[in-house]
Order: sequence, then C-alpha cells, then structure tokens
Amino acid sequence: MAALIDAHCHRVLAGDLDRAAFERACTEADLPAPAGVSYVDGQLGLAVRRWCSPALGLPAHAPVKEYLERRAAYGWRAATGTLMHAAGLTELLVDTGLDRADLVDDRTFAQLCGARVREVVRLERVAELMDCGAGDFASTLAETLHARTRGAAAVKSIIAYRHGLHIPPERPSAAEVTRAAGEWLRGGRGRLTDPVLLRHILWSGVDLGLPLQLHTGFGDRVLALRHADPALLQPFLAALDPNGPPIVLLHCYPYHRQAGWLAQVFPRVHVDLGLTIGHLGVRGDAVLGEFLELAPFGKVLFSTDAYLLPELYLVGVKQFRHGLRKLLDGWRADDALSAADAARLEERLTSGNARRVYG
Amino acid sequence: MAALIDAHCHRVLAGDLDRAAFERACTEADLPAPAGVSYVDGQLGLAVRRWCSPALGLPAHAPVKEYLERRAAYGWRAATGTLMHAAGLTELLVDTGLDRADLVDDRTFAQLCGARVREVVRLERVAELMDCGAGDFASTLAETLHARTRGAAAVKSIIAYRHGLHIPPERPSAAEVTRAAGEWLRGGRGRLTDPVLLRHILWSGVDLGLPLQLHTGFGDRVLALRHADPALLQPFLAALDPNGPPIVLLHCYPYHRQAGWLAQVFPRVHVDLGLTIGHLGVRGDAVLGEFLELAPFGKVLFSTDAYLLPELYLVGVKQFRHGLRKLLDGWRADDALSAADAARLEERLTSGNARRVYG
Amino acid sequence: MAALIDAHCHRVLAGDLDRAAFERACTEADLPAPAGVSYVDGQLGLAVRRWCSPALGLPAHAPVKEYLERRAAYGWRAATGTLMHAAGLTELLVDTGLDRADLVDDRTFAQLCGARVREVVRLERVAELMDCGAGDFASTLAETLHARTRGAAAVKSIIAYRHGLHIPPERPSAAEVTRAAGEWLRGGRGRLTDPVLLRHILWSGVDLGLPLQLHTGFGDRVLALRHADPALLQPFLAALDPNGPPIVLLHCYPYHRQAGWLAQVFPRVHVDLGLTIGHLGVRGDAVLGEFLELAPFGKVLFSTDAYLLPELYLVGVKQFRHGLRKLLDGWRADDALSAADAARLEERLTSGNARRVYG
Repeated sequence: MAALIDAHCHRVLAGDLDRAAFERACTEADLPAPAGVSYVDGQLGLAVRRWCSPALGLPAHAPVKEYLERRAAYGWRAATGTLMHAAGLTELLVDTGLDRADLVDDRTFAQLCGARVREVVRLERVAELMDCGAGDFASTLAETLHARTRGAAAVKSIIAYRHGLHIPPERPSAAEVTRAAGEWLRGGRGRLTDPVLLRHILWSGVDLGLPLQLHTGFGDRVLALRHADPALLQPFLAALDPNGPPIVLLHCYPYHRQAGWLAQVFPRVHVDLGLTIGHLGVRGDAVLGEFLELAPFGKVLFSTDAYLLPELYLVGVKQFRHGLRKLLDGWRADDALSAADAARLEERLTSGNARRVYG
Repeated sequence: MAALIDAHCHRVLAGDLDRAAFERACTEADLPAPAGVSYVDGQLGLAVRRWCSPALGLPAHAPVKEYLERRAAYGWRAATGTLMHAAGLTELLVDTGLDRADLVDDRTFAQLCGARVREVVRLERVAELMDCGAGDFASTLAETLHARTRGAAAVKSIIAYRHGLHIPPERPSAAEVTRAAGEWLRGGRGRLTDPVLLRHILWSGVDLGLPLQLHTGFGDRVLALRHADPALLQPFLAALDPNGPPIVLLHCYPYHRQAGWLAQVFPRVHVDLGLTIGHLGVRGDAVLGEFLELAPFGKVLFSTDAYLLPELYLVGVKQFRHGLRKLLDGWRADDALSAADAARLEERLTSGNARRVYG
Repeated sequence: MAALIDAHCHRVLAGDLDRAAFERACTEADLPAPAGVSYVDGQLGLAVRRWCSPALGLPAHAPVKEYLERRAAYGWRAATGTLMHAAGLTELLVDTGLDRADLVDDRTFAQLCGARVREVVRLERVAELMDCGAGDFASTLAETLHARTRGAAAVKSIIAYRHGLHIPPERPSAAEVTRAAGEWLRGGRGRLTDPVLLRHILWSGVDLGLPLQLHTGFGDRVLALRHADPALLQPFLAALDPNGPPIVLLHCYPYHRQAGWLAQVFPRVHVDLGLTIGHLGVRGDAVLGEFLELAPFGKVLFSTDAYLLPELYLVGVKQFRHGLRKLLDGWRADDALSAADAARLEERLTSGNARRVYG
C-alpha cells in the first residue's frame, strides 16, 4: 500500500452515539442549530454520506438516518475499524491535547487504524498540567516539555485560541514570565490565556527543535477569526532562525492564500490542509487549488484534523485524494505540467512532504 | 408558480431615465467614470444585456444603446412590469429606508411586481426621523420602532456605513445614550454617525424580536471596506442570546467566507447573497460556491438587493438561478450529492430558508 | 503584430547564471529553501518549463536542468532575445528603481526586446539619491521629480514596502517634512522609512500629474502582507481629486477583490495583474476571474512585473493570454457575452486600457 500520512489528527470516541451527538461532531458549532436547520445539511454532511455510506455497505448519499442505523448495527468498534481501513492511512500524527474521558485509548486506536501512530504534543496543555511555582515556571516547563516530547513527531500551539496570532516577536523576559506565572498560580491555575505565558510557551516549543504546528484560520467560535489570520504571525516568523525545523500552519482557511505566501518567503513555514479539506466537501478542490498558488509544492502537507468520528478521517482522505485528482486532471488537460510532474506532486502531498518534515 | 422570495431589495424609479442615469444605477460608484471607461462595461453591464434584452424582445447581448431605446419605447412602467414579470418573484422584502422622491410608491410597485410586498424597516432611518429630547431618545426610539415594525418582515441596520462593524459587544448605558443624544440634537439632528447612538439603535433592533439584517461587505465608497468585514461582528454576535431570531449578514463580499464561518458557529447567523450575486454577473456561480463552503445550507438566503432599476431584479434572479444550476450540475456530475439533495438545496435557497427566517 | 503593452516591469540580468541564481530569481524568497524543497517546484517553475522550453527549442515541461543547459548554450544574450521575441511585447514600461550593477543597460534591453521602452520612475529612489538640506527637501524633491519624470510614462511608490498602506489621508505639513528630513539627513540619508517623508513623497508623486503606480499585495518578506492590503488606501484615495490621472494598484493578490471594489468606486483607481498573473502559473485564470468581478473592464491592466529573467516576461505574457482565453471561452460557452464583447475585452486588457492610462 502506498504511504499516506495524516499529519494532524485527534482520537475518536469509544462508544456509540445518537444522532444529536453525531451532528454535533460534524460541525464547529457548540450550540444547537435553530429549528429547521441541521448541521449535517451542509458540505461536510454531504461528504460523509457520499464517502462513508459505501464503506458501510450502503449506497452513496444514503440519508443520515439510514447511515446512523447501519453504523449502530456495526457498533462503534467495527464501524471505526471499517472506516479507518477504508481511509487507508499508513501513519497518523495524533494531537493528544484533547483528552476527554470518552475517547478511545491509544493502543486500541492504533489497532483500529491499522497504522503507525505518533504523538503531537500540545504545548499549552503540558503547561497547564505541570506542577510548579512562579519562579520555576520556565525551568519546569522546559524540563517537562523535554520529557514529554521524547519520541513525539511534533509539538503544537493553540495560541490562536487563547489569545490570537497578533503577537509581538520578542521572547518575554524571565521577569515577565515569573510575574505572569505568579498571577496565573494565584488565579487558580485555570485555562492559560495570559499573553506573556502563551508567548513564553510558544518559544519554549520553538526551543525544542521539533516541527511546530500552529492552529491558524477557522475553528470553533472560541477563537476570534480575525485574530487567526496567519499573516499576523509575520513578525514572529521573521524573528525565528530561518534554519530551524519546520513551522506548520494548520487549517489556514479562509486566509490560506496569505499562508501560501508565508510558505513561499519564510524557509521554515509550511501549510497544512487539515480541517479545511474535509469540512468543505466538494469544494475541497477549489480551496486546494488556492493553497497551491504561492506555496512551494514541497511545503504543502495533508492532514484530516479528524476528531471524535472516524468518518472525518475517511472524508478527509477521500476528499483530499479526489480533489487533488480533479485538480491534476484539469491541469494535465490544460497541458500545464507533465504526467511525471503530476505524479511527483501527488507523492509529495500524500506522504513525501510529511516524511521530510516529521521524519 | 414555484415560490421565489427576494429577501432584501429596494424600490425602483418611477420614470424614464437617460443613459447617464442608467449607467449610474448600474454601479456602486457615485462619481463619473474617467473618459474612456464606462460603468456598464463590466460584469453587471454584461448581465443586464444578457438577461434583460430578451425580456424586452431583443436578442441577448444587445448593445446598451439599443437596449435603452427599446426600454424607452416601452416606457418605464411597461418596462418595469415586463422585467419584474420575467423575474417571477412571488414575494419581496423591501427596505424602505431609501426614500427618494422619484421612487415608485408602494402600491404601484406591488402592482408592477405582481408579488406580495413586505417591509424591512431601516433602524437608523427611524431614529433620524423621530421627534424626541435627549432624555427620552431611548424610550421614544423603542416606542417608535415598536409601532413602525408592526407587520414588518425584518429590521435592518446600516451601522457598517455609519461607523463600521468593529463595535464593542456591550450595550451602551442609559447615561451614555442620553449624553450622545444630547450632542446629536444640539448638532442639528443630522445623519446619525455617533457610535454610541448607532450601537444603541442596533440593540434596540435586536430587542424587537424580529429578524435583523445587517449590511456587511461592499457597497458604495461611503463605507470603509475594511470595517465592513463581518468577522468584526464576532464580539457582538457572541453577546447575543443564541436562541433569538435570525441575524442576516447581507452581501458579505469579499468577506463571504468569513461570513460562512459565522453562520456555522453562531446559531442565529445567516448569510444573504444580495448585491453580490447580481453585480458579479457570470462570476456569480464562483462566489455562490464560496458561500456554500462553511455555511449550513439552511442558513443561506437569496435576495437581489435591487435598487432603482427593475433590471437589477431580473439580473439578480437569473444569475442566482443560473449560477446555482451550474454549481449543482457540476456537483451532480462529480457525484457529490443525490438528485434529491440537489433539489432540496435549491428549494431552500430559493424560498424555503426565507420562509423559515421571515415567516 | 497586435499591440501588447507590459505596463510594469524591470530590467533583466546581463549575464549567464547558475541554477541557484536562477531559482532565486523564480521566487519572492530571499533565503535558501530548506533541504528537499525547491523554489522552482511550484506554479512559477511549472510555468517556466511549460512556456519557455519550447521557445528555446525543447519540449514543453523539460526538466529545469535540461532547460538551464539549453539556456547556457544560447548564452544570456541570445536567450533573452529569443524569449522576449516569443513574448511579443510591443511596449514596455520599465520601473528603473531597481538598479543593480548586473542588469542590462537600457539601450541593450530595448534592442533585445524589440519593443518601445518607456520609464516608470520610482519616487522613493529619486528622493534617496538627491542632494538637499532639511529645509529644502520638499522643494528639491519637487524639482528633481519634475526633471526626472520628463518623458516618463508613470511614477511608482513602494510605500507598501517602507511603511505599509495604512496612511492618514492628509498631506504632512511643511514643518513636519522639514523636521523629518532633518532626522533622515542626520541619520545618514539611508533607506527612507520615515512615515512623514514617505507620505510627502507620495503626494509629490500625485502632484506631478502622471499616472501613479502603487505596490499593493504580496512581494518579498520585507513588506508586511497585512499592511499591503489595498483597502487600507481608502482614506488616501478618498482625499484625492477624483478627476486626476490614474492611480494603478499593482499586484493586489491576495487582496485583489478588495482592489476590484476600489476600482469600481474610485474614478481614478485601476488594477494591474502584474506579478500575480505570472507567479500563479496555471492558477492565473482563476485569479484573473476574481480580478474581473467588480472592476470595470476599462480599469484592468496587464503587466508582467518581470525582473531579472526574460523567462518571467514570457511566462507573464503567455499565462495572461492563455488564462484570458480560457476565461472568455468559458463565458462564451455559457453565453454570458457576445463574441464582439469578448474581443473588445481582450483588446482592452491587452493594450487598450494601457494606452488610455499611460498615453
């Protein structure tokens, strides 16, 4: 089987779910839709019905109700195994920072996927869980991250969620970090949102020498969309040693053209299609085309950003492969590149770039 | 005849017009074009010649001069009736806030349209026309709006024009409103641009419990385009009770992808294609595809935002239907959805969503 | 030969180059790509191999290595002549503000191009090279610009690079200019980045009564992408006499839809496809479609923004012609415009608009 690497994803639920829970897992919304509106009546819902129904033995486009009945008949474990098998991933880089009690455990997940599973360590989560005082926040974080990332494929920052990407390029001073850590500890060690600590955590991630993934672009409404524009990162990116390990801008939409430019002019910057490629369904090829405007082809990575549902893995993979195929067929018909060029581009996006970036 | 609801539009001129006036009504520009440039030599002009010429018995793409001669031969009344009949709208929601003396009166307009006409009340206009002192600005506004919106389908805010969408999420305090109203009254009750009063007016609109339309995205040069990005509304949207009536983001372009995300994550938020779908002509399907990326299909509304010219009604309708048809045909050819899914989506965008939102 | 005017470009290298130098000239990056990534493995590289290989007698899509060997066999002079001949430009407007010692001289360039060459004077460069004191900075600039632009086709500002497009609309006062000039002179007359002087230089350009080109949108990483959004210019554009000579927004991407709106509502504003149309290769037609949404067709200009390599001229021309052809064929197939409309649009973008704007 040809290699197919999912460079950013999350674990799935260990258990069956009802329609309401399924719908909630198919949207970035966290509140019920108004009467008459369904979150599965959109591109992602169409894509789930298109790609996942056949995997469970139903005709494509089966109604959601039928699909969920069939899924329930399989049971979550068999459904997950079947859908993951259909996705055909050979390697997964799993962000372990979303730790709900109802997620499948690592070992079971790897078995169900039939793929190598490596870890992406979420920086902010490590900081929130560690034990320290104000004065040793920085040193404890460095040590804890060092220990926690042994064997990890990458680290990830969600500063876009906690503050936004409009960050000054300087590292906070030791005194600033101690002061901010003191306030955070006195405040009860809650969810980290202090800008100084978040920037310090980000730089601590940089210092690890691992690939660094950054959430950019859309997500749920906890983030301010305008502050998730990756172009805001430009001063920070300019402050980095240009020869360090890759910086991967995740998602990017609707600012993916800005991200493509960053990938062209900053040697370390790469872009990742995750979340966007699945959620947009049939529109995936349109947006993939936009990703492939300014970004060098060696800097575009595939991931699903799947979470909770194995369906999101399958949809991400299928829509990526299908969209890329359509795009390349169109370019070939236009005589814009040779067959060999098209094959090489496909190989890079599918696994070659991920292998180079994540080892 | 199948229902087709224009969820946001304006009245047309009652009278014939010359070429210069016709051209001015085909652009968002308010100043003459430089020598050698014509405002009808663009997408909207092409679309008018394509769709309206046959309605008046000319071949498609008739030159503007010929078209206007034919139009003059009909006379404005017959031309309006013919073009509106060709548009086939069954219901119009008319923003009555643009009150020029040369517009057709309500009753005549309804007759010429052969459609049910309902009102959209422009909030800022109501405030500007009411009689009050500083201390009773708030109470007078509440009473006046209550009376004025009896039977109205929706209210509308043009705060994007008067200030921009970068508004703090809090309601202004009563003292702030009184102070600001005092200044406005002392200044001669002119065009309302005070940020405190505009925010208060917006919240007064919210309090009515009616669907609330908001101008976002492009328009004429009185608005600052950057301040019309609907993503700027995020703090305001987050402050709303999630269970209230719909908030409809009008136009949105070129920030329609941002608007689609808002429609996904905020239960009340909907998006409307008006102005964009007509002005972009043959490019309408490209942009319609972008609208249909993140927005749930139940939250996308059709309108023409036509104003002054019945041509803009016909172009809006035709380009919407044609673009949607092309999009759905392409998706069907790609097997991205079933024929039933395509039909349901068309029904929603054409009338179903508007009926649910506006009653 | 039908006229084809390149309304913004730069001179090419006078000499042969190795692969590393060729790759550096094919990207906006100024730092080496990471191991495993090549800057010619992207849209521009594909476009060079597609369009330039046949011009040098190789099959389309020849590998870069083969292409460069063939090019070396020609020698830079013959290769330049051959590629420029294939481009078929009849007139070039050359920005002379990038003055490296290794560029071809004006006369040789004109000979190799076989085209009329006119000058675009870079405002900031003129200011940096002139001899003056603080008190006569303004008067010396006015005189020098007057002399330097005799016979020039246009002037150009790179304030996007030196400061950003978020500029207050007012002219700086004489006292402010003298103060800022004094600081600049005391600082050693280096690269001009003072906001007051940059604004004064911009207004001095406006006062010349020549077409004014402005860098907007992407470029190299010296500019802050977010500050290159042409929508930031709105207050400045609103402060201009609407009847003056054209303002041309260059490049624009990824903010070209914003630029198209500015071109619709501000009489003087035009948009130019340069840099964007070449760097995006096969994606050029997608972006050209977006340029042609709100901008009146009489306000869209073609240029290559080629620099250093004659290949960038040929790619710019070919991709523009090919993309426009595809776009117009699609619109014709959709019956969106007549054959005569399509021909007229092509004539305008190819030369008619440039002739009107630049005389």
